Amino acid sequence: AKGAERIMYYGKGDVWVYRSYAKPLTNITLIPESGFTGRDNVLFGMNIKVSVSGEKLFTSFSEGDNTNVVATDSMKNFILRKAGEYEGSTAEGFLAFVSRLFLEKYPWMTGIKMSADQVAFETLPVPGSNGFEVGNLVYRYSQNEHPTAFVELVRVADDIVLADHSAGIADLKLVKVKGSSFAGFVRDEYTTLPESSDRPLFIFLDIAWSYESAEDAFDADLGRYVAAEQIYDIAHTVFHEQHSPSIQNLIYRIGQRSFLRFPQLKEIRFESNNRTWETILEEVSVGEGKVFTEPRPPYGFQGFSMTKRDLEGL
Amino acid sequence: AKGAERIMYYGKGDVWVYRSYAKPLTNITLIPESGFTGRDNVLFGMNIKVSVSGEKLFTSFSEGDNTNVVATDSMKNFILRKAGEYEGSTAEGFLAFVSRLFLEKYPWMTGIKMSADQVAFETLPVPGSNGFEVGNLVYRYSQNEHPTAFVELVRVADDIVLADHSAGIADLKLVKVKGSSFAGFVRDEYTTLPESSDRPLFIFLDIAWSYESAEDAFDADLGRYVAAEQIYDIAHTVFHEQHSPSIQNLIYRIGQRSFLRFPQLKEIRFESNNRTWETILEEVSVGEGKVFTEPRPPYGFQGFSMTKRDLEGL
Ligand SMILES: Cn1c(=O)[nH]c2c(=O)[nH]c(=O)[nH]c21
Ligand SMILES: Cn1c(=O)[nH]c2c(=O)[nH]c(=O)[nH]c21
Repeated sequence: AKGAERIMYYGKGDVWVYRSYAKPLTNITLIPESGFTGRDNVLFGMNIKVSVSGEKLFTSFSEGDNTNVVATDSMKNFILRKAGEYEGSTAEGFLAFVSRLFLEKYPWMTGIKMSADQVAFETLPVPGSNGFEVGNLVYRYSQNEHPTAFVELVRVADDIVLADHSAGIADLKLVKVKGSSFAGFVRDEYTTLPESSDRPLFIFLDIAWSYESAEDAFDADLGRYVAAEQIYDIAHTVFHEQHSPSIQNLIYRIGQRSFLRFPQLKEIRFESNNRTWETILEEVSVGEGKVFTEPRPPYGFQGFSMTKRDLEGL
Repeated sequence: AKGAERIMYYGKGDVWVYRSYAKPLTNITLIPESGFTGRDNVLFGMNIKVSVSGEKLFTSFSEGDNTNVVATDSMKNFILRKAGEYEGSTAEGFLAFVSRLFLEKYPWMTGIKMSADQVAFETLPVPGSNGFEVGNLVYRYSQNEHPTAFVELVRVADDIVLADHSAGIADLKLVKVKGSSFAGFVRDEYTTLPESSDRPLFIFLDIAWSYESAEDAFDADLGRYVAAEQIYDIAHTVFHEQHSPSIQNLIYRIGQRSFLRFPQLKEIRFESNNRTWETILEEVSVGEGKVFTEPRPPYGFQGFSMTKRDLEGL
């Protein structure tokens, strides 16, 4: 209802791409919060969503004229075949590579958005001649948090221009057993929540970031790539180190630490969920334990974006 | 990465509201495609998401200063208690009612968005003195498509203004057994899809619409309320009546028919998924049957918005 411009796009979702023996991700800058040094990319997996737009598509809606319709089935074929030609090591780079080729191939398409949920294939220890070593044949398909990537290109006159990009991490779930409070909030006739000085804070967290220069995301050889694993390690380290007075403040500090370590970033966005457990027993028979259960709905959430300006005064 | 403005909001999701004996929905304009005449609203149910914003919230992030934080737990209490005061018959009206009261109560909040997935409680036939009649005690909690609503208010100087609104229907699933084709699309080295003259077209469909005057959505007594059930009936009727050359064209025609019946609407948006079955057997032993199975991923999708201008030349 807001804009006057017509929404018009079509595309393909759940395009699963598995590429074996992609270029390993190396050249990672070490930071104090993380031991992450790279990925072997023996299995490079992504679930991609592609969406294309362009005024020339209008008659496919209004008239059922399919002349300019690249079948979404062909989009899937395009993405899969280009995965064989990709020589880089990052999902961001792959999306930028294939979306540019797509606009070059189909000149009447004027915009393309591609997003990816990367599949995290974790290495496993196998017995070797000198004790356990890292295997390179069997991988664990992780169901935990995973890296994400997003690229949007638009045609401007004869050029193809990057309109937006981001990288991220989705489905992070972290629980801190003690050292989190929530107090000092508005108290009025709608308040039934007691102040809490020590809650078992359980959060869901999605984080996304963009770079000052997107090439740093597309080409890890430039040495300024930020791995999702590193942001993840910053998040849990900050959570561990600092008492949190709210999720709002916790994500702010995670953002500050991320900019401190990675000045090549331009913006960081957070989407958090509060999934704090309900406390059933404040004391157990022996020791400092408690008993908790899943909370009933609803759940709280926060959305927040930051830039390097939020480092001022630190 | 696009805008220069900071994202900053917080709120509550999965706020389940069940209100019994709300005002019945009546005053519905009959259309040829639908027998829908109203809802008794003996059970009026919604899953609400609320999100609030305002510059005054910034220090809750930067400093962990909770002075201006209305606990999301209190937001939940606010919504639930106001459900006891609501005298209208539509989810749109409830969202407008409660979000305005919220901004009035907390003057430092400058924006609020509320969305709702309505729970469809279906009436059931029970034996009465003259055969089956419509029961008003036991209802079926439908797991099928359901109505949706959305309202956004912003504070402008001393006023509270409606910034956006929509109503809709989500999770519609329709299958047409024959009478759908898909042909004439681009054929090149990336095309492996054969042309189809008769495919078993299975679609997922979300539809949302806004009104020229939002009051028509908030107050059904004005006689211009458009029920999700009516748009649903238009969708399946158009699907039934017309051969479809693509989903693109099918949704266009559903939109045209909707504007024809309901000129009080301003915009209609569609999000469709192609979930067409895979044909396993083109012929069965006896009769014109075939055998199908669920398609493998990926799935195609379309996004499209229309206004009454799309009726021109009809
Ligand atoms: C428990 N809780 C609420 O009810 N609201 C909020 C909030 O805004 N931020 C929190 O960290 N916790 C919390
Ligand atoms: C089967 N199919 C594709 O592959 N692309 C498309 C499209 O754009 N529209 C369709 O209705 N079907 C379809």
